[in-house]
Amino acid sequence: MGTRTGDVMDAIRRRMASRALSPGEKLPSIRSFATTMGVSPSTVVEAYDRLAAEGVIRSRPGSGFYVSGAVPPLALAEAEPRLDRAIDPFWVSRQSLDAGPDMLKPGCGWLPADWMPNAAIRRAIRHLAHADDGLLADYGGTRGSLPLRRLLARRFADEGIAAAADQILLTNSGTQAIDLICRFLLRPGDTVLVDDPCYFNFQALLRAHQARAVGVPYGRTGPDAALFARLLSAHRPRLYITNSALHNPTGATLSPQTAHQILCAAAAHDLTAHDFTIVEDDIFADFEPEPSPRLATLDGLDRVIRIGSFSKTLSASIRCGYIAARPDWVEALVDLQVATNFGGPSPVAAELVHATLNDGSYRKHLDGLRRRLARVRRETAARLEALGLRPWLMPRGGFYLWCSLPDGRDAAEVARAALRESVVLAPGDVFSVSRSASGYMRFNVAQMGDPRIFDVLARAMKASGPGTVSQPSR
Amino acid sequence: MGTRTGDVMDAIRRRMASRALSPGEKLPSIRSFATTMGVSPSTVVEAYDRLAAEGVIRSRPGSGFYVSGAVPPLALAEAEPRLDRAIDPFWVSRQSLDAGPDMLKPGCGWLPADWMPNAAIRRAIRHLAHADDGLLADYGGTRGSLPLRRLLARRFADEGIAAAADQILLTNSGTQAIDLICRFLLRPGDTVLVDDPCYFNFQALLRAHQARAVGVPYGRTGPDAALFARLLSAHRPRLYITNSALHNPTGATLSPQTAHQILCAAAAHDLTAHDFTIVEDDIFADFEPEPSPRLATLDGLDRVIRIGSFSKTLSASIRCGYIAARPDWVEALVDLQVATNFGGPSPVAAELVHATLNDGSYRKHLDGLRRRLARVRRETAARLEALGLRPWLMPRGGFYLWCSLPDGRDAAEVARAALRESVVLAPGDVFSVSRSASGYMRFNVAQMGDPRIFDVLARAMKASGPGTVSQPSR
Repeated sequence: MGTRTGDVMDAIRRRMASRALSPGEKLPSIRSFATTMGVSPSTVVEAYDRLAAEGVIRSRPGSGFYVSGAVPPLALAEAEPRLDRAIDPFWVSRQSLDAGPDMLKPGCGWLPADWMPNAAIRRAIRHLAHADDGLLADYGGTRGSLPLRRLLARRFADEGIAAAADQILLTNSGTQAIDLICRFLLRPGDTVLVDDPCYFNFQALLRAHQARAVGVPYGRTGPDAALFARLLSAHRPRLYITNSALHNPTGATLSPQTAHQILCAAAAHDLTAHDFTIVEDDIFADFEPEPSPRLATLDGLDRVIRIGSFSKTLSASIRCGYIAARPDWVEALVDLQVATNFGGPSPVAAELVHATLNDGSYRKHLDGLRRRLARVRRETAARLEALGLRPWLMPRGGFYLWCSLPDGRDAAEVARAALRESVVLAPGDVFSVSRSASGYMRFNVAQMGDPRIFDVLARAMKASGPGTVSQPSR
Repeated sequence: MGTRTGDVMDAIRRRMASRALSPGEKLPSIRSFATTMGVSPSTVVEAYDRLAAEGVIRSRPGSGFYVSGAVPPLALAEAEPRLDRAIDPFWVSRQSLDAGPDMLKPGCGWLPADWMPNAAIRRAIRHLAHADDGLLADYGGTRGSLPLRRLLARRFADEGIAAAADQILLTNSGTQAIDLICRFLLRPGDTVLVDDPCYFNFQALLRAHQARAVGVPYGRTGPDAALFARLLSAHRPRLYITNSALHNPTGATLSPQTAHQILCAAAAHDLTAHDFTIVEDDIFADFEPEPSPRLATLDGLDRVIRIGSFSKTLSASIRCGYIAARPDWVEALVDLQVATNFGGPSPVAAELVHATLNDGSYRKHLDGLRRRLARVRRETAARLEALGLRPWLMPRGGFYLWCSLPDGRDAAEVARAALRESVVLAPGDVFSVSRSASGYMRFNVAQMGDPRIFDVLARAMKASGPGTVSQPSR
């Protein structure tokens, strides 16, 4: 935009602010204001057009431009964290998504923006500006971008899962992927098994579907397989939702033995009840140093549906997730996605994801990310241990540390105390269906670079518990 | 990408295609292949990295690069229209969204890609490449982009609706906006009033919510208000979903009298049942030559929720919709959106929409669009009348013509016959809850530039009906 156009816009804005121009009033004519400002009439036209596009003024054809009618009420707090919110499965997401720039978020579930492959994304964006009109303007096919689905199919083939591009459905996000599956398979009142602890949003999602969540205790090699089998008989759940590679929140990895046992239990159960499905959320797959066993791989996408997204390693702003499932199920999921979101996910978003994944630098980005995370994981674990917060296990990858609190402290109280000092934590019970994790806290090691976090944590621990806590060195 | 890198990639691809390199086999070392190809080792590194990013080969740290394991099964038909599909509310969307490039789509609900403001969108994309890391990488706040919500609040204020930016929730699409509201307000078995005829996807959406749709006959000035009042008492519906400005499919405009009567009936009904809400889908607002009455404006966003999107006038590929509603409802809708889609819509998408709306050219684009549509509407109406297809009314704007068929012909049969000749039509009954519109067809005048459409239509009419139909001139 030319400086002159900006000057004209500012002049009008000042007149409106000072009420020299009131709502409803006609603006100076283009010719007269051009003379007043000493610019060409076309500069004033450009300035008026931009102000009209902003909604500040409006044009009445054949009559001229007028100051817009009313001013919307002023919102006093547009993004303030709410201290009074109950600590429920929505707590961490609402607090961390709406956190202002001065908040610290060791409780959140994503990497800092400057850890993401932004150079490759910018290249993809610049390339997008040259895409054809159809890609920029049209809805796109119901399954979403074919090039991206083909790329995913090749990646799956590499892991030993034969899935045609048509067996893959792109979605707006990993969460929306599970949501679509829930719409497809669940009815209100159905029971769903989840890990205990599990990603808190699984519980929020099941609540939205009016389904009942039953927890399977999650151990260091996966869910308790014997108990899993008993819960299948006792509750006849319709679904089991889990992460395998790097479990959220614990960071544990499913062992081959447990994977096999879970699938055998599911198969045995299915002899009597033909309606049990497993959703494997593979969102942390790219953080693994080496691929670990997957339920979807062992099962061959028969009883298992794989979902994932690119929010953790590529961008959470360019939203795109996927579902890989049996072909007949994908067909039904497409209808559901059309009904509830008209068509597939944004073709523009899918193109940006595809171009970034195809960028030669993306693999290096992942390698660097894994090395960096391994280092900060070790360092953060040491600092947390100094505060009496002990990692339940050292994960093979990813950015989470699931830590026990000392001396029977309540993580929710620590989280409330920390929030008063602008630090968002993730207290254990938001992850636990049985509310049995009040002595645990999930930390995101990538979000703990600011030393203030450890000071706040130490004070919050002190304020909320009886024991003595060593002070961190500053 | 350098031509040399591309040459190295092609050489590897050729070896794989000819099975000179088989799945699982190790690739030549970087140094040796550089010598073979007469390029520098760094060129080979770049080529291997790109092939690895594509998933064609994979790297094993410390060992080298290997051809990826398996090849996904070949899908024989990835986007073929299905002739055997039932003509139901999903019919038009599935056929037109997945139509190949050789299909003609006078039944679809969007403008041709080259009618959209692509130059402004490309400017917005180029600008986006310079955005900060946070916008490109982070989830963004739960309500979505504040600048876009402020711009919408100003536009609403201009129409006389005082809505704070916090009363606006951005969504992935207009459809997802209604879907969220349905999740919030509906339970399975609830009744919902819709216009008869109405946008077919309202019915698909209600089916996904297991709600029962009851139709209100839609006349030339809006729904039948007397019958509306009786249906409220008889069925105690939870919602009424409608378009006001330019009704889909009829193109009719709500009159001030009918708007007032509908709201009075709703208020009277609410004296006994405090749970009746109206959703006004304003997606065609920008096509109006002059603003017409709105339920949301008269009501002041009390019992009415406004939704909309930018898919019809800006881009359907950059997906973004919105909800404007009572503040307490928005808070609940945010929780639901977090649970089912984690966070708001794509910040990148909202930024592209905001920048395009703010582009001085956007208002001119709309003016031009309205003029162009007025012209093709007249021309298309004349050509359709020559075939015996008579517009029910001449809409004030938009791109639809709702036409009656001559001689008791069945629109579904005509649509099936046309689909065999690669033309997707929108037969009346997909819009009608009571299935009483089999003698009507919705045409999109912006998608009828190809004269082949009128030939196919004439043949399809002849094949499906008894009467004589005049042949169009070629």
